[in-house]
Amino acid sequence: MKKILLLFVLITYSSALPQEDLTEISKKIVKYTLENEYGYNMLKEFCKIGPRLSGSENSLNAINWAFKKLKEIGADTVWLQPVMVPHWVRGNTASLIQVKGESKKTSYNVAAFGSSVSTPPNGITAQIIEVKSIAEVDSLKEKVKGKIVFYNRPLDKSLINTFAGYGGAVDQRFRGASTAAKYGALAVIVRSITTKYDNNYHVGTVFFPDSTPKIPALAIGQIDADILSKVIKAEKNFTVNIKTDCKTLPDVLSYNVIAEIKGSEFPDEIVLVGGHSDSWDLGDGAHDDGAGCIHSMEVLKIIKDLNLKPKRTIRVVLFINEENGVRGALKYAAYSDSLKLNHIAAIESDRGGFTPRGFDADTDSLTFIKLNSYIEFTSNANAKFLQKGGGGVDIGFLRNAKSRIGFVPDEQKYMDLHHSSNDVFSEVHPRELELGSAAITILAYVISQKGL
Amino acid sequence: MKKILLLFVLITYSSALPQEDLTEISKKIVKYTLENEYGYNMLKEFCKIGPRLSGSENSLNAINWAFKKLKEIGADTVWLQPVMVPHWVRGNTASLIQVKGESKKTSYNVAAFGSSVSTPPNGITAQIIEVKSIAEVDSLKEKVKGKIVFYNRPLDKSLINTFAGYGGAVDQRFRGASTAAKYGALAVIVRSITTKYDNNYHVGTVFFPDSTPKIPALAIGQIDADILSKVIKAEKNFTVNIKTDCKTLPDVLSYNVIAEIKGSEFPDEIVLVGGHSDSWDLGDGAHDDGAGCIHSMEVLKIIKDLNLKPKRTIRVVLFINEENGVRGALKYAAYSDSLKLNHIAAIESDRGGFTPRGFDADTDSLTFIKLNSYIEFTSNANAKFLQKGGGGVDIGFLRNAKSRIGFVPDEQKYMDLHHSSNDVFSEVHPRELELGSAAITILAYVISQKGL
Repeated sequence: MKKILLLFVLITYSSALPQEDLTEISKKIVKYTLENEYGYNMLKEFCKIGPRLSGSENSLNAINWAFKKLKEIGADTVWLQPVMVPHWVRGNTASLIQVKGESKKTSYNVAAFGSSVSTPPNGITAQIIEVKSIAEVDSLKEKVKGKIVFYNRPLDKSLINTFAGYGGAVDQRFRGASTAAKYGALAVIVRSITTKYDNNYHVGTVFFPDSTPKIPALAIGQIDADILSKVIKAEKNFTVNIKTDCKTLPDVLSYNVIAEIKGSEFPDEIVLVGGHSDSWDLGDGAHDDGAGCIHSMEVLKIIKDLNLKPKRTIRVVLFINEENGVRGALKYAAYSDSLKLNHIAAIESDRGGFTPRGFDADTDSLTFIKLNSYIEFTSNANAKFLQKGGGGVDIGFLRNAKSRIGFVPDEQKYMDLHHSSNDVFSEVHPRELELGSAAITILAYVISQKGL
Repeated sequence: MKKILLLFVLITYSSALPQEDLTEISKKIVKYTLENEYGYNMLKEFCKIGPRLSGSENSLNAINWAFKKLKEIGADTVWLQPVMVPHWVRGNTASLIQVKGESKKTSYNVAAFGSSVSTPPNGITAQIIEVKSIAEVDSLKEKVKGKIVFYNRPLDKSLINTFAGYGGAVDQRFRGASTAAKYGALAVIVRSITTKYDNNYHVGTVFFPDSTPKIPALAIGQIDADILSKVIKAEKNFTVNIKTDCKTLPDVLSYNVIAEIKGSEFPDEIVLVGGHSDSWDLGDGAHDDGAGCIHSMEVLKIIKDLNLKPKRTIRVVLFINEENGVRGALKYAAYSDSLKLNHIAAIESDRGGFTPRGFDADTDSLTFIKLNSYIEFTSNANAKFLQKGGGGVDIGFLRNAKSRIGFVPDEQKYMDLHHSSNDVFSEVHPRELELGSAAITILAYVISQKGL
């Protein structure tokens, strides 16, 4: 009887506690972000550091900046997780010049892809063979020997999902060089994968299995790609010289930045929010993934400033080296596995700082249903749906996490900027960025309060 | 028995007819728009005409351009509906200059609001009194006499809905002058109503009931508004001279542009799609409402090019004079009422050419439910919800329409540009604009096939 009485008292007491109104809190979060634009101002500082390629001095400066900022925000703990990263450098030269041909245009707009090897100092002089796919190279076989292979299939802009358009073209960049090398090609040029018809090159990384020789790989702007294609068709003897002095230096030490607010009731249950601190070395990586870093950092800022008390631990991870090695993600996943960390959710923002639309999630059906019920709250920040999806590259390695969740902003402009000098701070809109921070904060906080 | 047999044959025959797959058609529409960007190229031409204030030569040029373009597209009928419109002109002067005061800054960035009257040739010299609301003027009463009233309440940017933010501030512009005039104020200055902190003035129209005297009304850029506010507070004797030579000329003849594709089964049931062809005289009215005009025109283009056969009539109306008189909308509504036209839906696009989010509708509950079931199709163009709402200014006069529907694009950037020199073609993104056309086309076509 005493026990029952105690239970009764406890129930009465706990239901008398002021109930947290998560709808009200969601609205407060939106209001706070739009009013203060704290994240937008953080992103301005972050972008001023310059491009943040893994292993570069800028990248370390950015990591240090984030470390200090997270301390300033008032996270319970902030630390740097060491990780060795590749150190590729672009060098000073990238050129594609006509050496035999009638064209008035004699020089084309190119840049080395990340992980590319250099040409010999005098470059590579050869004829160009244009293809539309890796399959075409596989059918041409030895016909590409001694040639420069020019992959010229554009992104299919008729697809509403620009990431799907990108996915349909990126194999040329990622595997095109190794396939061509297998048949004796000397180098590859790949049409920039973008939705914007300009002449900027959009870079990214190339991949070589150990079994194939490494050959130089260059990106070419879309306008020049179209001109080059015409010239090749018009002139039988057209020959070019390509040059790049990019190279891969020994791996260097870098860091994931990790910060958290400890959960008051279930500190061992972790809600991770993250982006990647590295970027390509063109533009200033404002959308890719400056926005994701700032979204994640602002989660803690908002929670502290609004005096919210998460029941579960909310942890920010700024992964290093997403662009050319995913070493940061691998390191964090190994660390998580070795300590058997309990990530109930890992939320990634790596699709730019555009206006929120929703989230995607990779999880079991029951968790998906529960997560979907939280969209009621994120809708206050215009993130109005949950769909099935991969979540993101960095959190993809957290296979033991209960859910991997990706922030889905509007995607129409992202590929205009992606991996190019178009990706600069001035392309970020304060309200759009802030609503992203608000949407992610709401989701992280609701998960921390209601669990998953 | 014969009758039953006939019925049986008819049913068999009709079910053997190829069924129209509206999901497939929706996807085709999206693909068509993104691939061809026909609307984006139309908008480029439209914007090249220049700003299109009612009564201006540009405005007539724009109307003629649209007439020809709709013919070219292949509408069944295209005609111009005459309507007399106000003819306000900005003139050559708008200034606000310090005549008594210590401030180093002596001149401020101002422009007359539409429908404002001019100052005397030498301007108006007076002290400025700053207020935050119309209510404040109502309480100050005769204290504003002989003064220039400066309305300085900013748009509340903490609201996620920028139209709500605008709605919360626009009374100062619309009714501020008439209220101040009632108490003997000589003129008003109103802080630009915008989400973008720059020094551009955002204009719009002012309203004077017949009972109050008309006084000059000027917009001031946000940065200058803040400086002016400080100067007023610092200097007791601060006095300015304001000048504008804007004026209202006699009404002139203009036109609504009307074009349609006749319905094959129910030609008397009309699905209207529309925007307004006039714009303010700054920028080139690319988003307001060039985008809405092009969205509407592209509906017909897509239907013709994809060889779709609407069962109900799809009619485009480019209303004239939404900005300062709604004469076009009044004219069309009167015409519709007099002929007892049956508009089952009137869809308006007047919130810019940004990426689609959904639609809003003003209709009865049952129609709302039916309409909501069509979102399944518009979702293919990212218009994913139907919410209750007003539809739009121009279609608002069609009280006998079964439904008034507003296209709801993303709204975060609209007020940055609205009624200012920021509203130019380069601020329109091709994919975002085209998805708007696709969403509206899908909705109009599905309504034409399934009814409402």
